Amino acid sequence: MAPPPPIPYHPPLGRSTGASQPPNAETMTKNSDSTGAAERPLEWPEAERPLLPFVPMIYVAWADGVLSADEIRGIREQMRAQPWLTDRARAVLDRWLDPDAPPSPAMLHALYLTMREIGEKLPEAERLSLAGLGLAIARAGSPATAGAASIADRPEVGQALVEIEGALGVVGEEALREVFAPERPAAGAAGEAAPTPAAPAAPARPASFDPAALGRFLDGDRRPMRERVFRLLREPRFRPDPDLGMAARRQWVFDRLAELAEHGLGAVAYPEAYGGEGDVAGQITAFESLAFGDIALVVKYGVQFGLFGGSILSLGTRRHHERYLRDVASLRLPGCYAMTEAGHGSNVRDIETTATYDAGTREFVIHTPNDDARKIWIGNAALHGRMATVFAQLEVGGERHGVHAFLVPIRDEDGKPLPGIRIEDCGHKEGLNGIDNGQIWFDRVRIPRENLLDRFGQVSDDGVYSSPIPSDGRRFFTMLGTLVAGRISVAAASVSAAKTGLTIATRYADRRRQFGPAGHPEVPVLDYRTMQRRLLPRIATTFALDFAIRDLVRRFAERVDGDLREVEALAAGLKAYASWHTVDTLQACREACGGMGYASENRFGDLKADTDVFTTFEGDNTVLLQLVAKSLLTGYREELGGLQLRGIVRHLTRRAATRIVELNPIATRRTDEAHLRDPDFHRAAFRYREERLLVTAARRLKRRIDQGTDSFEALEETQDHLVALALASVERTVLERCLDAVESCDDAALRPILEKLAALFALSRIEDDRGWFLENGYIEGAKAKAIRNAVNALCAELRPDAVALVDAFGIPDEVLAAPIALAQA
Amino acid sequence: MAPPPPIPYHPPLGRSTGASQPPNAETMTKNSDSTGAAERPLEWPEAERPLLPFVPMIYVAWADGVLSADEIRGIREQMRAQPWLTDRARAVLDRWLDPDAPPSPAMLHALYLTMREIGEKLPEAERLSLAGLGLAIARAGSPATAGAASIADRPEVGQALVEIEGALGVVGEEALREVFAPERPAAGAAGEAAPTPAAPAAPARPASFDPAALGRFLDGDRRPMRERVFRLLREPRFRPDPDLGMAARRQWVFDRLAELAEHGLGAVAYPEAYGGEGDVAGQITAFESLAFGDIALVVKYGVQFGLFGGSILSLGTRRHHERYLRDVASLRLPGCYAMTEAGHGSNVRDIETTATYDAGTREFVIHTPNDDARKIWIGNAALHGRMATVFAQLEVGGERHGVHAFLVPIRDEDGKPLPGIRIEDCGHKEGLNGIDNGQIWFDRVRIPRENLLDRFGQVSDDGVYSSPIPSDGRRFFTMLGTLVAGRISVAAASVSAAKTGLTIATRYADRRRQFGPAGHPEVPVLDYRTMQRRLLPRIATTFALDFAIRDLVRRFAERVDGDLREVEALAAGLKAYASWHTVDTLQACREACGGMGYASENRFGDLKADTDVFTTFEGDNTVLLQLVAKSLLTGYREELGGLQLRGIVRHLTRRAATRIVELNPIATRRTDEAHLRDPDFHRAAFRYREERLLVTAARRLKRRIDQGTDSFEALEETQDHLVALALASVERTVLERCLDAVESCDDAALRPILEKLAALFALSRIEDDRGWFLENGYIEGAKAKAIRNAVNALCAELRPDAVALVDAFGIPDEVLAAPIALAQA
Repeated sequence: MAPPPPIPYHPPLGRSTGASQPPNAETMTKNSDSTGAAERPLEWPEAERPLLPFVPMIYVAWADGVLSADEIRGIREQMRAQPWLTDRARAVLDRWLDPDAPPSPAMLHALYLTMREIGEKLPEAERLSLAGLGLAIARAGSPATAGAASIADRPEVGQALVEIEGALGVVGEEALREVFAPERPAAGAAGEAAPTPAAPAAPARPASFDPAALGRFLDGDRRPMRERVFRLLREPRFRPDPDLGMAARRQWVFDRLAELAEHGLGAVAYPEAYGGEGDVAGQITAFESLAFGDIALVVKYGVQFGLFGGSILSLGTRRHHERYLRDVASLRLPGCYAMTEAGHGSNVRDIETTATYDAGTREFVIHTPNDDARKIWIGNAALHGRMATVFAQLEVGGERHGVHAFLVPIRDEDGKPLPGIRIEDCGHKEGLNGIDNGQIWFDRVRIPRENLLDRFGQVSDDGVYSSPIPSDGRRFFTMLGTLVAGRISVAAASVSAAKTGLTIATRYADRRRQFGPAGHPEVPVLDYRTMQRRLLPRIATTFALDFAIRDLVRRFAERVDGDLREVEALAAGLKAYASWHTVDTLQACREACGGMGYASENRFGDLKADTDVFTTFEGDNTVLLQLVAKSLLTGYREELGGLQLRGIVRHLTRRAATRIVELNPIATRRTDEAHLRDPDFHRAAFRYREERLLVTAARRLKRRIDQGTDSFEALEETQDHLVALALASVERTVLERCLDAVESCDDAALRPILEKLAALFALSRIEDDRGWFLENGYIEGAKAKAIRNAVNALCAELRPDAVALVDAFGIPDEVLAAPIALAQA
Repeated sequence: MAPPPPIPYHPPLGRSTGASQPPNAETMTKNSDSTGAAERPLEWPEAERPLLPFVPMIYVAWADGVLSADEIRGIREQMRAQPWLTDRARAVLDRWLDPDAPPSPAMLHALYLTMREIGEKLPEAERLSLAGLGLAIARAGSPATAGAASIADRPEVGQALVEIEGALGVVGEEALREVFAPERPAAGAAGEAAPTPAAPAAPARPASFDPAALGRFLDGDRRPMRERVFRLLREPRFRPDPDLGMAARRQWVFDRLAELAEHGLGAVAYPEAYGGEGDVAGQITAFESLAFGDIALVVKYGVQFGLFGGSILSLGTRRHHERYLRDVASLRLPGCYAMTEAGHGSNVRDIETTATYDAGTREFVIHTPNDDARKIWIGNAALHGRMATVFAQLEVGGERHGVHAFLVPIRDEDGKPLPGIRIEDCGHKEGLNGIDNGQIWFDRVRIPRENLLDRFGQVSDDGVYSSPIPSDGRRFFTMLGTLVAGRISVAAASVSAAKTGLTIATRYADRRRQFGPAGHPEVPVLDYRTMQRRLLPRIATTFALDFAIRDLVRRFAERVDGDLREVEALAAGLKAYASWHTVDTLQACREACGGMGYASENRFGDLKADTDVFTTFEGDNTVLLQLVAKSLLTGYREELGGLQLRGIVRHLTRRAATRIVELNPIATRRTDEAHLRDPDFHRAAFRYREERLLVTAARRLKRRIDQGTDSFEALEETQDHLVALALASVERTVLERCLDAVESCDDAALRPILEKLAALFALSRIEDDRGWFLENGYIEGAKAKAIRNAVNALCAELRPDAVALVDAFGIPDEVLAAPIALAQA
């Protein structure tokens, strides 16, 4: 063991003159490396030995961040006041504790080594006391002799040390803990022999459940379609090069789409008579499964088979099905869904493209009357589409009958635009550059009468219009029903993208280590609360959303006319909720992965850019949520703006008296864990919020209408309220469907984890909106804090299961592809 | 005027048999187009005339969404019960109001025309009453004759109509309003003659202030540098093609960087002696101004002149300055700042690259001991860098002295990596693909002793280490001080990007029209409350942040050692706050622009992808906020983790008793506008929150430490609390600097708008965090609601000024470049 080095007398060192070294610093440092006899007395000039008991305090005074300059001066004064000090000792002390002239690093290091040397022989309690350690150093450096007791044995010295230590507080102990801490074993610091590029994986902690079993429960009957899609997505050719230019990427997407068609994935929803499988839910599952891969490919899939093919299927009649569906499914007939116009993005009802019937030639004339009426953002239009389902205002014999859909050929076999058709490329986009969006103008383009998709509105040869739906408005919303499958698909795809992001970020955060307690290895970042809070509530929300969307798909596939309105409203609401969840989740996950999340190979770049537009297309989220709110206000009768508002509002304000749950003053204060995790509490809270927002929205509307405000304006003035109502309603549905799923689970091994996920979803949402719950007296302040603690506790409980939870999403490594997410990366 | 058409007797129409038309529908429709004598009696079979008074109610029953099937049956029963009806009339009524057999569209249209025809001659009150209009129709269709009074004149008829109308509620009036509304003038529907491609611009509303004057006030002395930078950014060659591949984009950025250097923009911060301008604040302004253009270019600018050059300037001494600064400024010496290692992103103190002094050859040996220690994400490394400032653990004579910086040549004149240097490209990224990030490994690379940047630590020829800063920790944080300018610059650039996004979105939302009240033109989307709430609070926050960062730049440029810690903490906090604000703002702006926001030409794609990493680089936001919190806990003494925690916590918990402001029960309830807009209320609220979070954090830490929890763990367990504290502190600073700016404004014409912006910033932040304020009793529920209303009111008040506010950001159209933002687009 090395001898304690002498503590040198050192000259003051100014910051700017740091180059000059105390003459013996070098020797000292070298001494500390040599081994020699232990217990050699400290080499310390006689006159300065009275300062030996202060060594630990002097060290601590200069150690990182412990004392400010004023505090250093303060303890110097306390020390100087000790009667046993000589004037010479006081002069030395003045120099050693001069805040303007700190000691050299070597000097400080020498003190450190002395303290370790002496302290290592002491019991811990003594070693971690500035006084105890100081006395031990004094005893070693100024031993008792026949002539004099050691300074360490003088009672006034010990007492003074205890006093100064008391004044310093617990600071000293903390500093001394660090002195005696073992050196931090740096992660992966095994020298050049270290074989793996990354930090060693965290020791596998067993999950509390079997992820494969949870995965089977989650996927349910979606499993076979998942497997069918994953067989393709596993192939490396299904992963695009992120640096592909727009043109090459479009071709790549088209080629992959052709492969999907080859494998029959284009026809899943179509009737068996046309080579399909008649499986509407299956097509949505295919879409959702494809969304674990390249998002542009799944969007192209949706445009071709869902929107274009789907419009023929649901707006057309048998002759359209017979003539087109097979060619759509095989991609022999690439097509577009041309609804949106430049001037009318959200307000489809006011589109201006006209389809005028010419009874003389038995043709419709499709025409773009002005530039605002050009079709815009039409997928497949810039390059690949041969035909388009065009939405236009039908005019027969000078009479308008509202928006109808027409099949309009737009390109010839060589891909050249047909006469009267003008197409422009929408150009480069934030994401989805694999999709060839275009703008289309029609200059009096003639199409045969048969090209009207005539399920909901017919024109006879001689120009008589008829429809099974009398009002233009009702017919319009029925035709827009083709968008419902699209909205559900976008919601489902959003969840897939969130699952991908969460799987990558959670696996990375489980292995990535940064910082840690002194003397211990660095800690996996998922052990940090901020990281748990970033990922775990979003994992819980993703599970809950998956259950809710799965249920919606079932209702949609089994729908009867009666509940169509409610399914439509749910589709709109879940599309908005899920797409915002995904934008938020992917951003959180990207940030959780730090710089590695920024590398394209780890997928967040494309995932974020491609899914961003999910909040806009198939209906702008804010507009959709207003539709949802209006549906709630009207009891799902129609979605038609202000017309029926007055009657509705009267109805709802009547309801107010009876429906709103009375607040229970005990429940608003209960903070025990059993209550906070009780699904009945969650359900009641979510229902209360929705009902109250509904009734208060109705009251606000009534007040305005009673004052003579026009209904458009009244709705506008309560818009923020309506959006809050819609979100609360969607969230209540998500919770209820999630709780249904938990209750339906008969695998006892999975129940606990499902219950925790549901509770975390519910509590984290209540926490997030606690402003509302507090404002309305549903909870009190103490309960809000208890909910925060409950969220923290659930995050900590779920942390060991985090990787197993994302493994249950069941994304194969080859599909996940992100290097930071792969166990062997 | 057209004669009222006959109301036909029509057969029931099933939905599926909609093709069959009532025989006279066609005639009827044609009749309605012809002009003829007015006042012709309705052609209505005698036996059915008793139904004439019900015409408006029958129409309303089928109009969009007014009545459900049950309700239709309900009013049918009410009508059937009228004694004046004959059995024949009742049979007809049964068919007309059969929910399973709605009338044809033509039939409904005929009713519509009849109502218009008759109603147009009535006074409005009568016309908008189902009863009044019904009686008028009856009078016209069943006129009084000598033999009998008109059915309309029988008192029981009028009474029955009023009763049924009462049961229908106000629904009827609303439906009739729509019948009599003028046709909606569709935006831009001026036919083919319409000359402009977009909707006509909203009529210019005069702003309440002069945007140029506000711009001058905002920019202050930054104006000359702004102009200097904008002169370049205006050139079209400074706008990259979004479809450029990575290689081409890197070259593009390098070429533009060379232009900036040519114009002297690289040397702004360097001393005049080396060709610079000695203007630290000016360089930050240059950075901030460049950030209105391509973000990759500004990042490359920061890497070369700020980080690489800045490290030479602030860590090196005169010989380094003399030798390198001119070449750095001219880009003759492209360089890197190689700090981050793969295994140590945030935890720089534990990096593992070593720099061992070899006294024999007077060289340092730079070495990468394992793969985790490779330098990663180093800008300029993959392609252009010739030299790097490398951070490594200094070892002299077997002794470690902590992290130091060394100048290491990495490429020869031909761009080939030097012996011992291995470089790999970081590849394609989510954004910033104009930056050539790389990874670097060093294999015992030898550099001369002089290449140590030795301002804070020197090694003598013979291997003696010395430093003006004694402790490794303090020295480490002093060296990291080079990052402070970088963090301030990133905060400032974030604000520039937010300004760009807000300018584009606000101008677009001011002109883009969607939906509107019946009979009126569509409404600019910025008139909608949801849109105002998306944009205006973020505009206010951007102004406030700009004032705060401007003040920080001043403090940084004028700093003295004493307040360096506080400047560092503020830089860290504002960087985190501003970068998150920008990520959030750009997403909101992109969504506000709908599909048009997704087109790359409108810039959100690159803006979002490029600035996303601002939340990560120059310090992960969450890690930085923890540093800020620790600085607050220690009163800015050091930033060093748990070491000094115990003493600090004791200090703060003592402070708790005296410092926390007493809650004023009147203030918690005041909801009058004067109070809600009073800056003193805002200041007090922000201060209260920060102080209370500080004291409660200290208490929580103390409780844990008293129970024997290790300080690392204690900090970890309060991490979410510390992040909330840091954000509250930053936000308080932003508010105070914003209010300072308002108070400093002596232009009376600008004060009102500045006061509104400050109030909107403050109130929208309080609203956003109202959960906290409610939970802690600082406000009560009614006040929270009043604050929401106050935010709505401020948004509405600022709406007419919205475009002028973003115009005050002063971004020239050529720099803004987004077509949807340009007035003449």
